[in-house]
Amino acid sequence: MFYKLIYEGKSKRIYVKNADELLMEFKDEVTAGDGAIKASASGKGYLCAVVSAHLFKVVEDAGVKTHLIEYDGSRTLTVKKLKMVPIEVIVRNFSYGSLLKRMPLYRELEPLVPPLVEFHYKDDSLHDPLILSEDILRAGVLSVRDLSRVTELSILVNHALSRYFKSVGLKLVDIKLEFGYDQTGDLVLADEISGDTLRALDEQGRHLDKEVFRKTKNIDVLLKAYRDLALRLGLNVEAGSTA
Amino acid sequence: MFYKLIYEGKSKRIYVKNADELLMEFKDEVTAGDGAIKASASGKGYLCAVVSAHLFKVVEDAGVKTHLIEYDGSRTLTVKKLKMVPIEVIVRNFSYGSLLKRMPLYRELEPLVPPLVEFHYKDDSLHDPLILSEDILRAGVLSVRDLSRVTELSILVNHALSRYFKSVGLKLVDIKLEFGYDQTGDLVLADEISGDTLRALDEQGRHLDKEVFRKTKNIDVLLKAYRDLALRLGLNVEAGSTA
Repeated sequence: MFYKLIYEGKSKRIYVKNADELLMEFKDEVTAGDGAIKASASGKGYLCAVVSAHLFKVVEDAGVKTHLIEYDGSRTLTVKKLKMVPIEVIVRNFSYGSLLKRMPLYRELEPLVPPLVEFHYKDDSLHDPLILSEDILRAGVLSVRDLSRVTELSILVNHALSRYFKSVGLKLVDIKLEFGYDQTGDLVLADEISGDTLRALDEQGRHLDKEVFRKTKNIDVLLKAYRDLALRLGLNVEAGSTA
Repeated sequence: MFYKLIYEGKSKRIYVKNADELLMEFKDEVTAGDGAIKASASGKGYLCAVVSAHLFKVVEDAGVKTHLIEYDGSRTLTVKKLKMVPIEVIVRNFSYGSLLKRMPLYRELEPLVPPLVEFHYKDDSLHDPLILSEDILRAGVLSVRDLSRVTELSILVNHALSRYFKSVGLKLVDIKLEFGYDQTGDLVLADEISGDTLRALDEQGRHLDKEVFRKTKNIDVLLKAYRDLALRLGLNVEAGSTA
């Protein structure tokens, strides 16, 4: 069966399944340094898909709607067609990454209590810049009500995932979230939840996320970290890991 | 008389006058593009000094303390020695510049009512990144009380200068402010107020600020804009313009 490709990004392809549903296919490509470093890691797309599908269910169980409709165990999720909000929300539980670059007076991995919620304008050519809540309101991206709702949902999603990660011995450092409006006008969690969009540390402080690729540029190290993340989440990924 | 140089930046040198006072000497150097473009424009230092001294007095008249102690008509201001806050405050009355780069959904020169107050961490090597109020508080740069005070003072300074510019037919687009603690522990306005740190448009929409140099890379155009700004502010700069 042939589906129409409507979007191809650095890590995903989006196809039209029908009027209400899309197919989100995870690619094996991995990029770092704002796209400067690229590689292909066979099985990475599958690992991101299986982890995303699982974590979307964790989020749903916590009472937050997501775009996930169906997952068949492949590298592709069936998701709701949404009107996307052009904002990336980053929720930080510990100081790391770009937070330390903009404000070096934080200590690395300092706990952020309550979690820090920040917004970035989604535009690759601008490198997804940090923006102020006021920019979102004044430029008319979201109403006050919808910005509050996005913030509330981000806090709930982060809370649910942090608790879940803690229950399997992992520390959720930070996570990037995207939202869209479904056909009823509700804001729902979209995009993905994987080692590409969150940072997680195990008990030894080892990253089970893309940070290992940023540091080593080694795809085997990346695949091991992503497989370990899936295993720690209780997913049986050995059999289908290169599906 | 010899004074000890304690700081040299892109546009100023700071000398120790005595235990409580510094000399702030404005250089003729002009830079743009984060220091990528450099030139020397004879008389530019003087023009920035005379405009700064004048606008510090406007600010003082509005009831906000500044670091200005004395100005003798040269390229050097005598100022209070302060404990500087490592934050740049940008107050925007109209959308322009880096605001449009981080959020292109603003229209250019859209009025921002009330003015938008934003904070940047002062670090050339990091390119003075935008930070959140929460970063300032959480990283311990300022207390809640002092951040409120810096914000309040920034609004008052911008209000006084906007009114004053309006009275001479100019539009204050945006302005960068820095603050420091004086010996009594009060937060006072520091640094400079000139075409290097504000954007002002005349009735024809012509920039009387560094924007003309960013666009033309021409020092004569820059000097004309800076001289015109001084003249519009009622300053008699013709005689001493290359002092």
